[in-house]
Amino acid sequence: MHHSAEELFSLYEEKFSVKDFDFEPVGLYEPVKHIMSIPGKRIRPTLLMMACELFGGKVEDATHAAFAMEIFHNFTLVHDDIMDKADIRRGKPTVHKVFGINAGILAGDVMLSYAYKYLCKMPKASLADALEVFNQTSIEIYEGQQLDVDFETRMDVSIDEYLKMIKFKTSVLLAGSMQIGAIIANASKDDQLKIYQFGLDLGLSFQIKDDFLDTFGEEAKVGKRIGGDILNNKKTYLLINTLNAAQGDDKTLLLSLLDEKEEQKKIDGVVSIMRKYGIVESTSTKIEELYLSSLGHLESIKINAEQKSVLRSMAEKVHQRDY
Amino acid sequence: MHHSAEELFSLYEEKFSVKDFDFEPVGLYEPVKHIMSIPGKRIRPTLLMMACELFGGKVEDATHAAFAMEIFHNFTLVHDDIMDKADIRRGKPTVHKVFGINAGILAGDVMLSYAYKYLCKMPKASLADALEVFNQTSIEIYEGQQLDVDFETRMDVSIDEYLKMIKFKTSVLLAGSMQIGAIIANASKDDQLKIYQFGLDLGLSFQIKDDFLDTFGEEAKVGKRIGGDILNNKKTYLLINTLNAAQGDDKTLLLSLLDEKEEQKKIDGVVSIMRKYGIVESTSTKIEELYLSSLGHLESIKINAEQKSVLRSMAEKVHQRDY
Repeated sequence: MHHSAEELFSLYEEKFSVKDFDFEPVGLYEPVKHIMSIPGKRIRPTLLMMACELFGGKVEDATHAAFAMEIFHNFTLVHDDIMDKADIRRGKPTVHKVFGINAGILAGDVMLSYAYKYLCKMPKASLADALEVFNQTSIEIYEGQQLDVDFETRMDVSIDEYLKMIKFKTSVLLAGSMQIGAIIANASKDDQLKIYQFGLDLGLSFQIKDDFLDTFGEEAKVGKRIGGDILNNKKTYLLINTLNAAQGDDKTLLLSLLDEKEEQKKIDGVVSIMRKYGIVESTSTKIEELYLSSLGHLESIKINAEQKSVLRSMAEKVHQRDY
Repeated sequence: MHHSAEELFSLYEEKFSVKDFDFEPVGLYEPVKHIMSIPGKRIRPTLLMMACELFGGKVEDATHAAFAMEIFHNFTLVHDDIMDKADIRRGKPTVHKVFGINAGILAGDVMLSYAYKYLCKMPKASLADALEVFNQTSIEIYEGQQLDVDFETRMDVSIDEYLKMIKFKTSVLLAGSMQIGAIIANASKDDQLKIYQFGLDLGLSFQIKDDFLDTFGEEAKVGKRIGGDILNNKKTYLLINTLNAAQGDDKTLLLSLLDEKEEQKKIDGVVSIMRKYGIVESTSTKIEELYLSSLGHLESIKINAEQKSVLRSMAEKVHQRDY
């Protein structure tokens, strides 16, 4: 019998906490404890443990690797927030805002070492395979971050380039977490790739839905101002497709709206062009397509269907959210 | 027959270069190539390969791990230079000076992943042991960096605290490199610890000599202005011992000199107090003591003496330098 998502979450929360960073010098570890103390959904650790159980592995063999992925994820947030000059993260002041940029850089660095340290507590027999996935995943994440930076100053970003960027920036960590779970369970290379593909497509679907909700979500549900991406001229799936589709006067208007200073006018104007060119429908179709593709990879794994239900319902939940 | 230091250096230089970072996006990898292209002595890789050969290992098994240590070392330089706001590194503009702070943070991050990636190319059988050393070493380096930061605003730093700081900040990477070399050669745990201790003491001796030369070296040989540490009130081995030793009026004068704005007056004044309290002699004694202690650890390794000669002459060279 497999653990449910809730059981895995509890298992993780009971086993790991900021106490795991109760070290000196405090100037190094306080910033680490600050970010690690913020409650989260622990999606990556949960997916890793689920994948391990799916392939018949013991969840106890996967907990340390699960913690490693959460530490790694939080490390990327600390450094990203410095680079983005972000003040708030999950409702709390960001690490560099509280402790300064130098402390944020160093805290991130030490977190990465702890991520490796915990990953190395997994069963030794398949450690090298897991490390290969982890190294490659982290390199791709930095490449994705750089692509995102590059896109800020480019007006000719293609959809393929955008998909590569979000694949690297968001999806590979979900996919890699699950592949590592599969590796711990000694899954075949073929099964590892299938669960990896499941994670990739689910992550892409998730990120495009994120783009969609930022423009077409309900403010009360999403919990932040609708239209933020439009105001920042963010090269999202929506904007790139609109830039590609808009013709003649619409294109001229769209380009002028990118420089529009009056916020509501800018949002309404861009949304109106998006609606005219069917961007709501085409984006919804893409999200659905990627979601179904992810389920297809899950289904293709030759394991009895019952055992896939926790991962399938996790995917459903991710897909159906309107927040 | 073992390779000489020069042969190992050439072997390294022929095998690895900036071409190993010829990837996209260029915005991510150009900063990496910038730091990795600066010529260096490759001390850590050389020590790692020497230690591997000392214990009968094949140098070919150690080259990737050697490269990993050099990448790691350079990563710490990139992030340290951001934190120290340093403009120049080995005669070239620092990474963040050329490419910006964000690029420097991200370049450092990806270098750390490549360090792990290359380390993982070592023989699989002892990979887990090497990773344990590498993880612990990197964590200690960050702790040392934080201690160094903490010391800037403290006037009561003890010599023990100082020794712990330079051990973490400088020595453990030399020591860890050699232990990893020993691990690759399948050396016994006992031998691993001896070569580690050799590296630790050699590193401490090296760092205190660095402090010494900054105040009592010859400007033409050291290649930088003598007295820089004094001007920055840096808590070096020399200053901490002087603060501990100085009595009465000397102590009062020393403390006032810390606030002295006229540079030459400050340097001359502090040097004069140091000489009065025999700091030249006590520091030289400590450097010698640590050097002899490092050689003692090397001698204690039960391997025929001839095979230790490359490491012994490396240590001698480090010890006898006046630059």
